[in-house]
Amino acid sequence: MLYFENDYQQGAHPSVLERIVETNLIPMSGYGTDPLCESAREKIKAACESPNAEVYFLSGGTQTNRIVISTLLAPYQGVIAAKTGHVSVHEGGAIEASGHKVIELPCENGKIDIQKAREYASAFFADENNEHMVFPGMVYISFPTELGTLYSKSELLELRRLCSEYNMLLYADGARLGYALASPECDVSLEELASLCDVFYIGGTKLGALIGEALVFPKGGAPGHFITLIKQNGALLAKGRLLGAQFDALFTDELYLRLGRHAIAMAEELKAALRRKGMRFYLESPTNQQFVIMKNEAIERLRQFVRFSFWEKYDDESAVVRFATSWATDIESIAALEKVL
Amino acid sequence: MLYFENDYQQGAHPSVLERIVETNLIPMSGYGTDPLCESAREKIKAACESPNAEVYFLSGGTQTNRIVISTLLAPYQGVIAAKTGHVSVHEGGAIEASGHKVIELPCENGKIDIQKAREYASAFFADENNEHMVFPGMVYISFPTELGTLYSKSELLELRRLCSEYNMLLYADGARLGYALASPECDVSLEELASLCDVFYIGGTKLGALIGEALVFPKGGAPGHFITLIKQNGALLAKGRLLGAQFDALFTDELYLRLGRHAIAMAEELKAALRRKGMRFYLESPTNQQFVIMKNEAIERLRQFVRFSFWEKYDDESAVVRFATSWATDIESIAALEKVL
Amino acid sequence: MLYFENDYQQGAHPSVLERIVETNLIPMSGYGTDPLCESAREKIKAACESPNAEVYFLSGGTQTNRIVISTLLAPYQGVIAAKTGHVSVHEGGAIEASGHKVIELPCENGKIDIQKAREYASAFFADENNEHMVFPGMVYISFPTELGTLYSKSELLELRRLCSEYNMLLYADGARLGYALASPECDVSLEELASLCDVFYIGGTKLGALIGEALVFPKGGAPGHFITLIKQNGALLAKGRLLGAQFDALFTDELYLRLGRHAIAMAEELKAALRRKGMRFYLESPTNQQFVIMKNEAIERLRQFVRFSFWEKYDDESAVVRFATSWATDIESIAALEKVL
Amino acid sequence: MLYFENDYQQGAHPSVLERIVETNLIPMSGYGTDPLCESAREKIKAACESPNAEVYFLSGGTQTNRIVISTLLAPYQGVIAAKTGHVSVHEGGAIEASGHKVIELPCENGKIDIQKAREYASAFFADENNEHMVFPGMVYISFPTELGTLYSKSELLELRRLCSEYNMLLYADGARLGYALASPECDVSLEELASLCDVFYIGGTKLGALIGEALVFPKGGAPGHFITLIKQNGALLAKGRLLGAQFDALFTDELYLRLGRHAIAMAEELKAALRRKGMRFYLESPTNQQFVIMKNEAIERLRQFVRFSFWEKYDDESAVVRFATSWATDIESIAALEKVL
Repeated sequence: MLYFENDYQQGAHPSVLERIVETNLIPMSGYGTDPLCESAREKIKAACESPNAEVYFLSGGTQTNRIVISTLLAPYQGVIAAKTGHVSVHEGGAIEASGHKVIELPCENGKIDIQKAREYASAFFADENNEHMVFPGMVYISFPTELGTLYSKSELLELRRLCSEYNMLLYADGARLGYALASPECDVSLEELASLCDVFYIGGTKLGALIGEALVFPKGGAPGHFITLIKQNGALLAKGRLLGAQFDALFTDELYLRLGRHAIAMAEELKAALRRKGMRFYLESPTNQQFVIMKNEAIERLRQFVRFSFWEKYDDESAVVRFATSWATDIESIAALEKVL
Repeated sequence: MLYFENDYQQGAHPSVLERIVETNLIPMSGYGTDPLCESAREKIKAACESPNAEVYFLSGGTQTNRIVISTLLAPYQGVIAAKTGHVSVHEGGAIEASGHKVIELPCENGKIDIQKAREYASAFFADENNEHMVFPGMVYISFPTELGTLYSKSELLELRRLCSEYNMLLYADGARLGYALASPECDVSLEELASLCDVFYIGGTKLGALIGEALVFPKGGAPGHFITLIKQNGALLAKGRLLGAQFDALFTDELYLRLGRHAIAMAEELKAALRRKGMRFYLESPTNQQFVIMKNEAIERLRQFVRFSFWEKYDDESAVVRFATSWATDIESIAALEKVL
Repeated sequence: MLYFENDYQQGAHPSVLERIVETNLIPMSGYGTDPLCESAREKIKAACESPNAEVYFLSGGTQTNRIVISTLLAPYQGVIAAKTGHVSVHEGGAIEASGHKVIELPCENGKIDIQKAREYASAFFADENNEHMVFPGMVYISFPTELGTLYSKSELLELRRLCSEYNMLLYADGARLGYALASPECDVSLEELASLCDVFYIGGTKLGALIGEALVFPKGGAPGHFITLIKQNGALLAKGRLLGAQFDALFTDELYLRLGRHAIAMAEELKAALRRKGMRFYLESPTNQQFVIMKNEAIERLRQFVRFSFWEKYDDESAVVRFATSWATDIESIAALEKVL
Repeated sequence: MLYFENDYQQGAHPSVLERIVETNLIPMSGYGTDPLCESAREKIKAACESPNAEVYFLSGGTQTNRIVISTLLAPYQGVIAAKTGHVSVHEGGAIEASGHKVIELPCENGKIDIQKAREYASAFFADENNEHMVFPGMVYISFPTELGTLYSKSELLELRRLCSEYNMLLYADGARLGYALASPECDVSLEELASLCDVFYIGGTKLGALIGEALVFPKGGAPGHFITLIKQNGALLAKGRLLGAQFDALFTDELYLRLGRHAIAMAEELKAALRRKGMRFYLESPTNQQFVIMKNEAIERLRQFVRFSFWEKYDDESAVVRFATSWATDIESIAALEKVL
């Protein structure tokens, strides 16, 4: 069986696991006050070139999104997101359960249509009856998006200007951030992203960790008593060291970026193989997720040998499916996949 | 000055106010257990031909929508609504603040596109990964809609079938229900609406009451301890009699329907007058709200003599405005409006 | 039948009702922007000698408490209240439903034990692990309390100091405020209360209005976009004029204080009558609610002629019951009650 | 430095970590559908002798408590807990943030006073005005309690009867369950606990896991779409295998019980050493946490050599401190502690 289902099907990268193992029996204080968390925080601040950053470690993406959005917004505010955004579709209503509307805007290939976003904000703040409506207080993007696409630096600058103009926060969900940064089409560095966003997270779960996301407020300014807010959301780990150890490893010797580069190299091989086999791409993705349109019968046949994801119905005879590479993908399985195809 | 701004600019219809005045000094028990509420409940059940109905009185539309939706849905469920629905746009995020997603579907002239709703529900329940998404548990419609339009009986039957098929509740927001029932284009009676919906409300605030909406569960089945839930939402009036008295008056001698008919007769006169003046209609509304497209300069000039509502920008030179009639509109003001135009 | 069950069993005081009736057909703008609300706001600001005050009108006490507490507290904060406080016991969990803990402190005769409150706050803020706990952000008192008792001016000053010292807000629930201010034992004026509290409300429902409470931020500082927050809570009346008209009447020619004085005069008569009949008082209440301990059989016999409230079990053979006077109580019914007793 | 601060200062027991390491690179499906979770579930069901049980894995205690309580209660219900309960005091208001009141009852040594609980429930359900109050829908106990004490089997039976009588659920927080089951004073087995509770959890974080709690519904009956509810709370791990692997190890060859027994044996040694040193016990704890009263100066001196927890102020000159053993405590450190003392 070949595995291209997602980027979280294996455990942790061996170097990450090693840090957990080697520090396992050392007594440490709880709740993220341990030296591993402290070291990881410093390394992340350095990697972001953000000496005033505040860094917190959380367990997963939905948890992070819910905590960030619900604690940074006022009760009368909602968050703008692409109609296909993770917070819009795939978090079981976590944002609304925390009391906030996800204001879904039109998007293309997973990216917010910035012109539409500008028109929306402009009309909203010009409306003299807007007190009966939810105020947009934040723009949520994912980088890369759900569909593997990337915002260019000039698009991010445009979003930053829009947010500043209308006093909204800019938040980037980096569940797969390492796969964005390693893409040949990415013209934004980690430091630049940090300078453009009010808050973002660096995803570990999908990039070599067992669990964990590093939430970064690059200029500081986390909500007051943020630890209590994390606790209240059931997200404060007694053994915060588990997260600290992993991010400490990921940000040692640029492991995080190296894992991203490996996955992207594998994705390029995958694309080439799919192209050689005449597969029809659903869209052009420059990162680790590749979407192709296949006949329903072909999908059924392929399932016997390969694990991959059904994405959505395309038409009555075919569907969009996803193949993902990760830090753990090897060149042999891509060759094997090409053979099977 | 002429008044066509909305249908809640005056106080109560004189007969409604009279019932409050004449019962004012009689001591009664609190929280809706008084004889006025009891009498009003019986009259509403009779008018709906729903002997098993449960009827509760609440203060306003947003309050009613929030309580209905949040108490009938499970935490993992959201409510389907038109993108232009009141719950989607004009309730300051009340539904999301109660923890539930408003699943906004495409609409035309304020009405949910039923075919799109069917496709959405069908795709959702066929998706084997739907446990990561919000489950649709209810369809919310307004009758008439925000734009004054009406669902036909066959459309309501289709919505009913859709709901039954996918185990969703059908809820009708009747903030202006009396204006729907009195429309010449309405082919649904109050009894039929009651038989088709799981829950709906009969709006008083916009139809002759000072305040108040009558929430009807036509087949019973209100959530357990509903009084406590109303209390918890801050919506249980100590002097429930205020609501009971008004609905008792509104449902005596068909006052409610008569007020609706008067407003619709006035709306027909208004339409004729607007047409005679060559006004361009934004859409064809069979109820008490009429939407026309006017040049921005014309709007400014008219504001000196008439109060009406700005609805939305149409293009750079013109906008959609709304003229509303109500139980309180008289023929003289329509004649005067025509003259001004 | 004689009526001493509560202070909201009749409708509105005739002067209050008259203001509604006489302004009924005048078209006015909605949502509290009408001239009646404007006038009432000015009169209340004058009565409070608080020219910078912000005043909002809401429908009932639980609604007001929920909105005040949930919009003024941060998510990590709770509100301190007496164990017998209205928010602690009789609001169906409205405060918790809005996400905040009611931190219940020991009390005597309905009043927070200020020494205990100081010990609690002092221990809390000294605890280096307090980030795992709910932060006290507000002290809620009712004035008069649930048991009709009053804080003295020096006690209010002490609470004010405590709040200022620990950066907590002081909020007074004045559901029956007029009955406090009119009590011979009250050494605090409305202006003084306004100068001591960060926020309080002047109750209308129990003091001559059909419905309505006037929420006062004496020094300004209501939460941003407070109208949207009210809307989101389902508490923004389209016909805000209903509340404005009533408070405009209540604050004309000191009607509010006069109604209070009448009820207190009646309460003094009631106390004298109860004493003459040898009734045993549960506590000494200087306001309009009187609590006496009666044998269970006597309670049953009295119910045939008089409506009064069961308060709580006292012992196996007797219970605490409540007799309340109001603006509507007359001297004849007290004489009749004495006769019946 | 000697470590007696808490029972989560080290990482995982070596056998637990080994299971993570040895399965690390095997591709598995996400969100708890992997074979490790499946195996762990079966072992837990067997250990509980509950073949119909439903078992879910979550990350931490507060998260588990919040999800259990908020998804099993109706919105009008609250949860009864001891005034010193974890949900009452040390979860940053997580339960209230989910919308539910924690009904705090008097307790002794951390245990709910069952007689008081019965009186409360009996009075509540007899009160004809209880619809204005929060309904008790669940009794929360911790086993062992925050203070290390245990309910006897007969007390648990009494709680079970109380719950059944008043239609309340019985929920046991087993953050330290293994330390209870191993105590010589515990007369309840895991199977018996499972048969008495509607729901409980087996704590991993404090008993040899890096992270993780096993939530057990012994008779089935988890809330519908529980996975979506977990997701909505931000608690669904993509790599659920991390939890599955650990509980699979903990429930292999009774490791969980063996770890508990070790900690209790060490606690007995610790008690003996403390007694030999003439320390004054705050209460008699039969589990792994020992509370003693020490002079403030003695505390300061001891801090130079030993890490332990400040619990609370006792009087002006002394305080209660806690020493905890765990699966990782060795006899040498207890000897060393005695020496230091």
